[in-house]
Amino acid sequence: MRSVIDIVDLSVEEINGLLSTAKDIIKHPKKYSKKCKGKKIATLFFEPSTRTRLSFEAAMIELGGSAIGFSSPSSSSASKGESISDTAKVVSKYADIIAMRHYHEGAPLVASLNGDIPVINAGDGGHCHPTQTLADLLTISREKGSIDNLTVGFCGDLKYGRTVHSLIGALARYKNVKIVLISPKELAIPSYVKEDVLDKYNMEYIETANLEEALPTLDVLYMTRIQAERFTDKAEYERLKDSYVLTREKLNKAKEDTIVLHPLPRVNEISVDVDDDKRACYFEQVENGKFMRMALILMLLDIAKKDKSKYKIDDSKIVYNKFKCKNPVCICQTEQELKGMAKDCDGVWRCVYCDKNL
Amino acid sequence: MRSVIDIVDLSVEEINGLLSTAKDIIKHPKKYSKKCKGKKIATLFFEPSTRTRLSFEAAMIELGGSAIGFSSPSSSSASKGESISDTAKVVSKYADIIAMRHYHEGAPLVASLNGDIPVINAGDGGHCHPTQTLADLLTISREKGSIDNLTVGFCGDLKYGRTVHSLIGALARYKNVKIVLISPKELAIPSYVKEDVLDKYNMEYIETANLEEALPTLDVLYMTRIQAERFTDKAEYERLKDSYVLTREKLNKAKEDTIVLHPLPRVNEISVDVDDDKRACYFEQVENGKFMRMALILMLLDIAKKDKSKYKIDDSKIVYNKFKCKNPVCICQTEQELKGMAKDCDGVWRCVYCDKNL
Amino acid sequence: MRSVIDIVDLSVEEINGLLSTAKDIIKHPKKYSKKCKGKKIATLFFEPSTRTRLSFEAAMIELGGSAIGFSSPSSSSASKGESISDTAKVVSKYADIIAMRHYHEGAPLVASLNGDIPVINAGDGGHCHPTQTLADLLTISREKGSIDNLTVGFCGDLKYGRTVHSLIGALARYKNVKIVLISPKELAIPSYVKEDVLDKYNMEYIETANLEEALPTLDVLYMTRIQAERFTDKAEYERLKDSYVLTREKLNKAKEDTIVLHPLPRVNEISVDVDDDKRACYFEQVENGKFMRMALILMLLDIAKKDKSKYKIDDSKIVYNKFKCKNPVCICQTEQELKGMAKDCDGVWRCVYCDKNL
Repeated sequence: MRSVIDIVDLSVEEINGLLSTAKDIIKHPKKYSKKCKGKKIATLFFEPSTRTRLSFEAAMIELGGSAIGFSSPSSSSASKGESISDTAKVVSKYADIIAMRHYHEGAPLVASLNGDIPVINAGDGGHCHPTQTLADLLTISREKGSIDNLTVGFCGDLKYGRTVHSLIGALARYKNVKIVLISPKELAIPSYVKEDVLDKYNMEYIETANLEEALPTLDVLYMTRIQAERFTDKAEYERLKDSYVLTREKLNKAKEDTIVLHPLPRVNEISVDVDDDKRACYFEQVENGKFMRMALILMLLDIAKKDKSKYKIDDSKIVYNKFKCKNPVCICQTEQELKGMAKDCDGVWRCVYCDKNL
Repeated sequence: MRSVIDIVDLSVEEINGLLSTAKDIIKHPKKYSKKCKGKKIATLFFEPSTRTRLSFEAAMIELGGSAIGFSSPSSSSASKGESISDTAKVVSKYADIIAMRHYHEGAPLVASLNGDIPVINAGDGGHCHPTQTLADLLTISREKGSIDNLTVGFCGDLKYGRTVHSLIGALARYKNVKIVLISPKELAIPSYVKEDVLDKYNMEYIETANLEEALPTLDVLYMTRIQAERFTDKAEYERLKDSYVLTREKLNKAKEDTIVLHPLPRVNEISVDVDDDKRACYFEQVENGKFMRMALILMLLDIAKKDKSKYKIDDSKIVYNKFKCKNPVCICQTEQELKGMAKDCDGVWRCVYCDKNL
Repeated sequence: MRSVIDIVDLSVEEINGLLSTAKDIIKHPKKYSKKCKGKKIATLFFEPSTRTRLSFEAAMIELGGSAIGFSSPSSSSASKGESISDTAKVVSKYADIIAMRHYHEGAPLVASLNGDIPVINAGDGGHCHPTQTLADLLTISREKGSIDNLTVGFCGDLKYGRTVHSLIGALARYKNVKIVLISPKELAIPSYVKEDVLDKYNMEYIETANLEEALPTLDVLYMTRIQAERFTDKAEYERLKDSYVLTREKLNKAKEDTIVLHPLPRVNEISVDVDDDKRACYFEQVENGKFMRMALILMLLDIAKKDKSKYKIDDSKIVYNKFKCKNPVCICQTEQELKGMAKDCDGVWRCVYCDKNL
């Protein structure tokens, strides 16, 4: 049994396999239209997310299967205090695979350790959202022909943006990818991303506060939203915000074949008049997300068919019940009788559920 | 690409075609049970409406397709501030056709102008609800044999009832339909409906406050609800309300073959003991709504198959960004970077989104 | 037309037939995978319940059919004041069978009396929840080989637990079933259950407050939750609560082949470390619920195919509009123009909707 909680749960070979499958689905959709006949995905969304939920449901339906589930916690048994573990065990009796979104970090891991079917993390708080990264990778691969040898700029909120951290982590495993980090100081990339990824994998990277200067150097521009509430100094926010809005005028400074990505939803960080520019690929990215979810569902159901053993994590480096996680949105704060799990990451203890330092 | 936002988007020939298709579906349901195999409808309901949503979903399922969507804005990305335009572009990647209900007037038009798939307006505020009118027309056609040469009474709230205005507009295009308008003065038909429809199409009509007197003259009685909150003078409401409730006793004054319609939900404007009378057709009307939605889905998907160009509106009479719409529930008040559109209607400028005078 | 509102609506022969069908479904799932092709279940959940709703939807999908519906009243037309009767009449036009959960006792009965399709009660307040009882019976039958000749213990809240009353009622119709009632005095079984079921059917039963003492005698242990709010004396609750929590240690006093059931969701009345014990059958019970719902859907659709007459109740003992039900959560308090119905139960008048004494 396999589950996908974090993008790093997938090897590069597996990711490349998913990219191949997705491209084959795009070319030959009919070949796949009955692959999951009789199968059901349970979309357990403890937090609303139309885009992601509909993407998983559309993916399963296009594979010939069905979807059941809920779209907000108020319409679920969570309001009666049911644990994630029990929910996963129960839903295992109804469905073949789970896509779970939860406001508690680590909830999908708890589900995967307790249920009898594969779990795909569809976003757990600020922690992980691996299928977004898969959508990003397919878009880059389709639009640029390859993921190697690219200069990829990330613009906006690089401090809190989990999609940014996750995509950088994935890109680290490809060849010769240069990273350009474009953000105000307040929202600069955290030092642990530099240490754990950029430095560790010897990635070439530069940091800048100037989008317009960086633009001409980029093959890929990954935009994210800057939220007012991230700033302590509101005047600073007002001064800065417009410089990180992508307009048609600014885009003219980019190369002809630069592609613009955005995890969506956007509010106004990309002007609507950019949408018709052929470099704008964020709606293609949405569709690519569906194709990668189809590929991932196929892969996980295929593994589950052959290996019915419960999902396990490598516990060689794990210590149980020794540390108490202090992350207020970690699932370990609320889940009934959950044993604490800490892992040794190069001398630092981290919570296995939420990856925060202990 | 075609979308249906307003009943007037459909020609009489198209409406008659839909009526024929619906009747054929009723006769030969199996013939249609796989017509939409592999197709998906997205039911995007920013405002709850069980009846209409389930009707669209049942329609698509009976055509062999599937439904995805949401039933209230709290479980959608709208709470994150996503624009209707982006939602439409995103959902175009997941589904083949959209049915949208929204509290903002004009929202389905914005969706149809931006998405890549047909949009059916499933009700936008007090503006339009064309598939209700299609349900009404099929019911009249099936029960009376024809839509021509009928006397149709409308009873209750004729001032705010969008279903009333819409059905009168549709009937104007048939032959020799007489209209009887039954309401208290406070809720009389607006003068623009008289000018734009009744007078313009030379329809014979009378206005009366007395349901019981009008009843014997009618072939069709279309009931609507009178809401207390529409009256400034509550004593007046108390005095009047019972005279617009249809009871079995009152119905006895109608002809043997009069039919009673109601867009539902009703509260108490039709007494429950009328339900068993053979003239009561409001539950047949519900089923006819499903059949007309099936016919409409088939028609729009068929057009979309042949013509993949974006949905456009005739802009020969449109002026951009000249007027500011003052309707507080018009979509132009909230949608990001939406250009204002005004159309010249016989010398009066109207907002293209909500049809209100500018 | 048949509906199932209360477990007693089913004869022992019918229950045994459902058990047989469910076991055949388990053995030969493919044989059933297209039985409901083209059929739709409407899951009308006026109160959230993920487990039950997903179970009905999974059941219909595994029979080859589809599901439509809603998961909370806020996303339904109930917020517009529509009656249950009208909702049932409307949904009859969209679906082939209804599963309804409602906070008003008797709502599914009102639906079944007014709609044109079979209704399954999926839980109406504290009144009935027959498919839970069917899940319980299949679990006992599969795990113990038979339902006859067993000693069945019920532990926890026996006063308010509708699943307990319902299962005892069902067991009364099998041979030589002994009942052990384990609860604090505050939550003892109501006297009407003793009179109407235990005494009436000459069932052997004992009452005790001690779970540990009772455990070694049981073939089946049915656990339920004790809620703090049931106690007037909070100190009493604190003193008692742990003695009704099933731990691995306590379970060691049970026989090797005792089975533990729970209607779920649990909070902490069964310790998580019991889950891996082979005697823990509450997750199997969940799956059995799905299989019994499949069997019940098949049975009701089969009857509806042959007999299209409206659902009726035996009204030989019913008196209309004579008594006024005082149960504040009875559907008769809110449903428009609903006639009161009282039935004579051995000299006591009871409301037909909620079964409460008048």
